[in-house]
Amino acid sequence: MSRFWSEITHTLVPYVPGEQPRHQRLVKLNTNEAPIEASPKVLEAIRSTSGDQLRRYPDPESVALRQAIATRFALDPAQVFVGNGSDEVLAHAFLGLLKHPQAVLFPDITYSFYTVWAGLYGIACRQVPLDEHFAVKVGEYAEPNGGIVLPNPNAPTGILLPLEDIRRLLQANRDSVVIIDEAYIDFGGESAAALIPEFDNLLVVHTLSKSRALAGLRVGYALGQAELIEGLNRVKNCFNSYPLDVIAQRAAVASLEDESWFRAGCNEVMETRAWLCGELARLGFECLPSAANFVFASHPQRHARELFEALREQGIIVRHFARPRIDRFLRVSIGSRADCEILVEALEQLL
Amino acid sequence: MSRFWSEITHTLVPYVPGEQPRHQRLVKLNTNEAPIEASPKVLEAIRSTSGDQLRRYPDPESVALRQAIATRFALDPAQVFVGNGSDEVLAHAFLGLLKHPQAVLFPDITYSFYTVWAGLYGIACRQVPLDEHFAVKVGEYAEPNGGIVLPNPNAPTGILLPLEDIRRLLQANRDSVVIIDEAYIDFGGESAAALIPEFDNLLVVHTLSKSRALAGLRVGYALGQAELIEGLNRVKNCFNSYPLDVIAQRAAVASLEDESWFRAGCNEVMETRAWLCGELARLGFECLPSAANFVFASHPQRHARELFEALREQGIIVRHFARPRIDRFLRVSIGSRADCEILVEALEQLL
Repeated sequence: MSRFWSEITHTLVPYVPGEQPRHQRLVKLNTNEAPIEASPKVLEAIRSTSGDQLRRYPDPESVALRQAIATRFALDPAQVFVGNGSDEVLAHAFLGLLKHPQAVLFPDITYSFYTVWAGLYGIACRQVPLDEHFAVKVGEYAEPNGGIVLPNPNAPTGILLPLEDIRRLLQANRDSVVIIDEAYIDFGGESAAALIPEFDNLLVVHTLSKSRALAGLRVGYALGQAELIEGLNRVKNCFNSYPLDVIAQRAAVASLEDESWFRAGCNEVMETRAWLCGELARLGFECLPSAANFVFASHPQRHARELFEALREQGIIVRHFARPRIDRFLRVSIGSRADCEILVEALEQLL
Repeated sequence: MSRFWSEITHTLVPYVPGEQPRHQRLVKLNTNEAPIEASPKVLEAIRSTSGDQLRRYPDPESVALRQAIATRFALDPAQVFVGNGSDEVLAHAFLGLLKHPQAVLFPDITYSFYTVWAGLYGIACRQVPLDEHFAVKVGEYAEPNGGIVLPNPNAPTGILLPLEDIRRLLQANRDSVVIIDEAYIDFGGESAAALIPEFDNLLVVHTLSKSRALAGLRVGYALGQAELIEGLNRVKNCFNSYPLDVIAQRAAVASLEDESWFRAGCNEVMETRAWLCGELARLGFECLPSAANFVFASHPQRHARELFEALREQGIIVRHFARPRIDRFLRVSIGSRADCEILVEALEQLL
């Protein structure tokens, strides 16, 4: 506490990311990182960056990267916004597109950073409960609102909302921005980006952290009609002219250009997920149906916190959220097959 | 314009950075980039980053980097904050430490991003005129205020305020935060970081963009007593958990460890600056005394805008600010000796 802090600083409650252990050798299944390494083309783009490129400011508008993303989604570069991880993109979207007199709506169980950004920018929000099976109740978002944020698949449940439900949500909310946060869409979902030409109120947010194995690089982006993107640019240009360094821009372009690596990586995660869900079921766990690179599983006879701690003692880190409705679950990232086998063996011993 | 933008988004007026040309071969002396390339140790740190490091989230607290910075300034890591360029560091400082009921004070001629951040966060500000020689009038900052921001050396003038004046400023403003933005301090100034143990209201901000030739990498930092740094961390952790990617963290540590490269680079810039000032004087320019990696020069007989445009036609880009009091000046970054010679030859032809 300090008398020098501004009023808001005293009230802020930060987002708490999953632990990033610095020293130990661990089986790390707690932050939904990719089990495979980035495309060799990404490493080549990084290693070929020159001292001359480093001494200059990077392209403040990330033109080449925005073009590569636009091409991938059959959009125009003016419909693409990039940022320092999808977290920065979402932060700017909260300030630029969701700060309105009416409350922003999002699920009661979802990415916990949403309430943090609302707090940072003084945005009213209302949490809409998921149903008893943890599904999004699309009908309950039809009330007047200042915007809607929905991760699809949702986190930490992993449950996917079909594109037709997203369409219904957009149709019922023509006067407010609907953000579909698709951090995990590449593991079995269908992107709402296809709906952008139809809806001027749709913003789709992606990250390179998960399906492109680049969490360490910090690149995220948003897709939407040009006026929404211009709103984000206004905020960005009043915050930091150069949010993406030259290496991140080059590496991200290289990643987007390696489609075969991308497909193989997503398939590997989905195969391991199917195997892990089978093993967890065999051990008595109930897994929610996941379209993400993690599973959300509970055991009818065992407290999740106890399992979390017992695993931790063995150097296996998963995630447990001590929050209402979900404290009986463990969220397990889909690691390599080898890491998942270590987890299954450990659980077999514990149960 | 869009009905979906929040109210603030309609009112925002962005900072306009110096042009970053994408295609032409130019003599680029407009954004104060370093004329030399980063330490080879930096390139080695970048090239040795592994795919495994990239697939994982970076250290959200940048412990190794903060330790390296702390060591350099004989501070504790709890007295160091890092961000995605000093612009992000300053943005968080505006929201976290300068948003108070009373107005923030800064010079009328200074880094033009300060008014932009004030606008972004709804912070009242008052610009205090520099004197007729463009010097900061320390005595005029003694009135009640919500904070003070002062670049030292100032930009775009390049004029250095002696450390004793900074001390006077801090003593006269014990109840508000004084930010000394030392982006250019390594080119002949003495850092106010030495005053941190004495003053709990002092925040010193540095960048690796200029004296460490890493504008393309986006790393900046702030130094201050732990309570000020904690305030910045609160804002950062409510905005983006991982502002610095793993490559930037590694490269920045490598740069900070290469003291001999750093000294040589700063000396080269200062030598070229002395030579360029002499040449400009020979051509009839009046140069303000610069302690930065740029000079601010005016010619009694020629309009700066005309010179700017004539140089531009020859592929030589400098910066001209069409603003009151300084529209007769050109700001010329200290490039390589070869680039500065091209500039001098071109000016000789034009005058």
